[in-house]
Amino acid sequence: MMVVIPIAIAIVMWFLAGYSLAFSGSGKFVGNFGNILFHGVSETASTKGYKIPDAVFAVFQMMFSIITVSIATGAVTGRIKFAPLLIFSPIWLIFVYYPLAHMVWGGGLLARMGALDFAGGDVVHVSSGVSGLVLAMIIGKRREFTRTEYRPHNVPFVLLGTGILAFGWLGFNTGSALEVNSTAIHAFITTMLSLASAMCSWVIIEKLNNGTSTLVGTSTGLVAGLVAITPGAGYVSYGSAILMGLLVSPICYFAISRLKHKLQYDDALDAFGCHGIGGIFGGVATAIFTMPNLTPEKGNFGLLYGGTHLFVATIAAILITAVWSGIFTFIIIKIIGVFMPIRASDREEAVGMDDSEHKETAYPTFMGLDS
Amino acid sequence: MMVVIPIAIAIVMWFLAGYSLAFSGSGKFVGNFGNILFHGVSETASTKGYKIPDAVFAVFQMMFSIITVSIATGAVTGRIKFAPLLIFSPIWLIFVYYPLAHMVWGGGLLARMGALDFAGGDVVHVSSGVSGLVLAMIIGKRREFTRTEYRPHNVPFVLLGTGILAFGWLGFNTGSALEVNSTAIHAFITTMLSLASAMCSWVIIEKLNNGTSTLVGTSTGLVAGLVAITPGAGYVSYGSAILMGLLVSPICYFAISRLKHKLQYDDALDAFGCHGIGGIFGGVATAIFTMPNLTPEKGNFGLLYGGTHLFVATIAAILITAVWSGIFTFIIIKIIGVFMPIRASDREEAVGMDDSEHKETAYPTFMGLDS
Amino acid sequence: MMVVIPIAIAIVMWFLAGYSLAFSGSGKFVGNFGNILFHGVSETASTKGYKIPDAVFAVFQMMFSIITVSIATGAVTGRIKFAPLLIFSPIWLIFVYYPLAHMVWGGGLLARMGALDFAGGDVVHVSSGVSGLVLAMIIGKRREFTRTEYRPHNVPFVLLGTGILAFGWLGFNTGSALEVNSTAIHAFITTMLSLASAMCSWVIIEKLNNGTSTLVGTSTGLVAGLVAITPGAGYVSYGSAILMGLLVSPICYFAISRLKHKLQYDDALDAFGCHGIGGIFGGVATAIFTMPNLTPEKGNFGLLYGGTHLFVATIAAILITAVWSGIFTFIIIKIIGVFMPIRASDREEAVGMDDSEHKETAYPTFMGLDS
Repeated sequence: MMVVIPIAIAIVMWFLAGYSLAFSGSGKFVGNFGNILFHGVSETASTKGYKIPDAVFAVFQMMFSIITVSIATGAVTGRIKFAPLLIFSPIWLIFVYYPLAHMVWGGGLLARMGALDFAGGDVVHVSSGVSGLVLAMIIGKRREFTRTEYRPHNVPFVLLGTGILAFGWLGFNTGSALEVNSTAIHAFITTMLSLASAMCSWVIIEKLNNGTSTLVGTSTGLVAGLVAITPGAGYVSYGSAILMGLLVSPICYFAISRLKHKLQYDDALDAFGCHGIGGIFGGVATAIFTMPNLTPEKGNFGLLYGGTHLFVATIAAILITAVWSGIFTFIIIKIIGVFMPIRASDREEAVGMDDSEHKETAYPTFMGLDS
Repeated sequence: MMVVIPIAIAIVMWFLAGYSLAFSGSGKFVGNFGNILFHGVSETASTKGYKIPDAVFAVFQMMFSIITVSIATGAVTGRIKFAPLLIFSPIWLIFVYYPLAHMVWGGGLLARMGALDFAGGDVVHVSSGVSGLVLAMIIGKRREFTRTEYRPHNVPFVLLGTGILAFGWLGFNTGSALEVNSTAIHAFITTMLSLASAMCSWVIIEKLNNGTSTLVGTSTGLVAGLVAITPGAGYVSYGSAILMGLLVSPICYFAISRLKHKLQYDDALDAFGCHGIGGIFGGVATAIFTMPNLTPEKGNFGLLYGGTHLFVATIAAILITAVWSGIFTFIIIKIIGVFMPIRASDREEAVGMDDSEHKETAYPTFMGLDS
Repeated sequence: MMVVIPIAIAIVMWFLAGYSLAFSGSGKFVGNFGNILFHGVSETASTKGYKIPDAVFAVFQMMFSIITVSIATGAVTGRIKFAPLLIFSPIWLIFVYYPLAHMVWGGGLLARMGALDFAGGDVVHVSSGVSGLVLAMIIGKRREFTRTEYRPHNVPFVLLGTGILAFGWLGFNTGSALEVNSTAIHAFITTMLSLASAMCSWVIIEKLNNGTSTLVGTSTGLVAGLVAITPGAGYVSYGSAILMGLLVSPICYFAISRLKHKLQYDDALDAFGCHGIGGIFGGVATAIFTMPNLTPEKGNFGLLYGGTHLFVATIAAILITAVWSGIFTFIIIKIIGVFMPIRASDREEAVGMDDSEHKETAYPTFMGLDS
């Protein structure tokens, strides 16, 4: 429920004002109200110079806004209450997502600085990862965090979800070319190569550290590979994509298995360890590996090809994204906390959020067995 | 099995005669045999004036016929036997689905009256919903209906199925434009807005009535939102789509939680409460909200814009669809009942249809636990 | 894990050398290194005379190579160890898959002989089916094979997987037209008709033999129908597709339920019984039913239309594929067996491969119940 309802809210909000705040006007930090209620969003032509009509662009961009907020709140699943989450999600979209989308893709500050983000490294992954980390630190650990290892209750479902995610993600990355062209097929191939090589390196790093490799680990590696390639899918070479995939898994593995326990933040779905760290890595790698011939219209290229401007702009963009997301998340959740309890009680958490918040169990027939 | 096998039957029948009965000739109630065995169905050109070849049109329409019959029979799952269901499904297609598809989309009676049905409000949802209600009343309640509340045994699967359904449904509604144009993207957007707002209003109505909101409820709301927008997805404005989504959930919620228990019909999958009621509501709303500029070639528009003709035609079409579906379903099931038992015995029902009809359990490893 | 990791390996290998070994040069048995690392693979144009750029062709073909190896190794799931499987998979791709793809689709020996394989009958199904049979015979039966019937532990997942498979398979068969044209829609329709009629005939044959029909059986029939139509999806008539679907299920049913137990090979996922036998049947049927007007550029047609050349070429191609696959699989697994144990110990098998190889259980919450 905590993932599903925010989807519905994000769809309606995108129509009401989100698209307008992200993609209208020429502000530095946020759009204006020129396109609220999809006013002026053409179903037949592009007013932005793309080959797809405005309305297609608008719903494609909607999908990004739908998925992002749930990555962040996934970090505190299992102890955040339903009501504050329902309030947090739309406010976070207004103060974090729409401005960042505007800054990066809507012609705002970061775009003007020259930062590149092909399909959401900053806008989606750094923003949600850092926000998840802040939420996890403020709301605190689950009761058993220090004592037990929380594991997915249904591993086949983890794999299935990862597969569906990859299917959609290929749409995000390929679609970010905004037309059927060589950039689209390039992004498809780099995405496949990155996810595959990240799976391989995760299996190896897990085997070396734990003596075995697991399906949950492999799935995490696949997602890490997707995150890493996202900011540069249309810009880096095939070989760079493999290298990025190979490197991202050890980095995220370290963040998830060591850093989390050392710093004692309970990031339930590894929003920070996988999306945040992976997004930062992917952004930096994009700034290093972006090929001159793949971004002709921008005239900038990676450090490897002598482009220092893109590198500086990218580091600055990641920092601005992280600070912006962290500060606003902190403020929003603190203000909500003034008006209502954010965290479930010990008893509610012990019973489980399904039951305490929704009076629903996942498998009623097997009820009583999953105690 | 009771959903899967009818899919296979419907595919073969569509090729044998279904397409021809629905889309050939100029009859009022049903097509002729001009296109049996896909005879004359061109793989390269359209003989109907569309931009897609006949063969593409034929398989697109096939998908509607596949899904419709299983909505109806879903109403009596858990007590209808397998054999009568296998006999009922193809006969229902011949006497209910193919004629209705012809009447609405094949140039038959309802089309001539001026009724609009963009993607299956009458043809799919009113027809299957009413048929489901008739089946449920004739075949009777499950043994425990008055004593217990039947719940889905696997709630994550409910959500997964809803997601897959929505994915396919976006194909139905967007594809009903029959080409890649502004109507297609318009239908995509209205569908997204309706499903999202219906989810929101379901959560609210459920919370107000039960004190909590559930994932099963939210999934039902999503489906209700899809049903509501289906007849008008290409015709109504974005704002109307949101309004339709907001209104359909309370209406269907009332039908499912109150009407069903008051009238004591056991509609297991809420074919009537969700598809029937939602389809009727969606049809009426379409007749109210259809915008003049979105149906230029038809020259008719909603009551809100002064169009009384469409409104009368729509009400008449819904009534004809409901009466036609109800009467034929009644006749078919009664005749089948003369030749074989339709309802499982008490013992078979207690054991469960999986075991009594198919000697198969869903989760053999956990066998004995789900007693 | 034994299906997932080979996917990642196959993706990376395809880029490194697989595509080149399958589709470059003019060798009889295998390609050369002209396209390694996707060198010379254009993102904008086709150097092969297709309407899609080389890069799109390359990733489309990649998908076939991803899926094939896991069909073969699925035959010995439940007792093959993880390490030898990880070594077997890439070597099998190099010595079996890439050469066969070259021989059939890359202009090699079988193509020159005039054999037709629209979407992978030989390359995918005969090759993996025969390889699976050889693996099953060498590695031996699971401990309980003679005593018990192994059944899928989660039947809803079987259906879900079958549905996802069919979705992807429609992409394989339709996409094998390599452009949006009448062949693509023809292949889509024949595929739907074959899978549907195979479901129907499986239900009937199962009912006649066992007294009941099951969802697992129906799913197997659906897959058999897909396998059967794959080599000829673009070449045979609609009516032939139905006939092929109707015939393949009894044949595969016999192979799975009788032959397997008579010959005492434990093919866990019925790689041979479904894919091997179905692929051989489909190939022969294609050689009989291929219509002259559907393969104009090739100038050959089925036995039914007087074409003996295609028939002889097809039989030869099937034999060569089977022998090639069988011999190399035998050699590869025997050599691996020299260096490491291939088969899990009795204790590991009793515990289950999830636990013994990966220290992971599918449903940790229900742990201890599925003993």
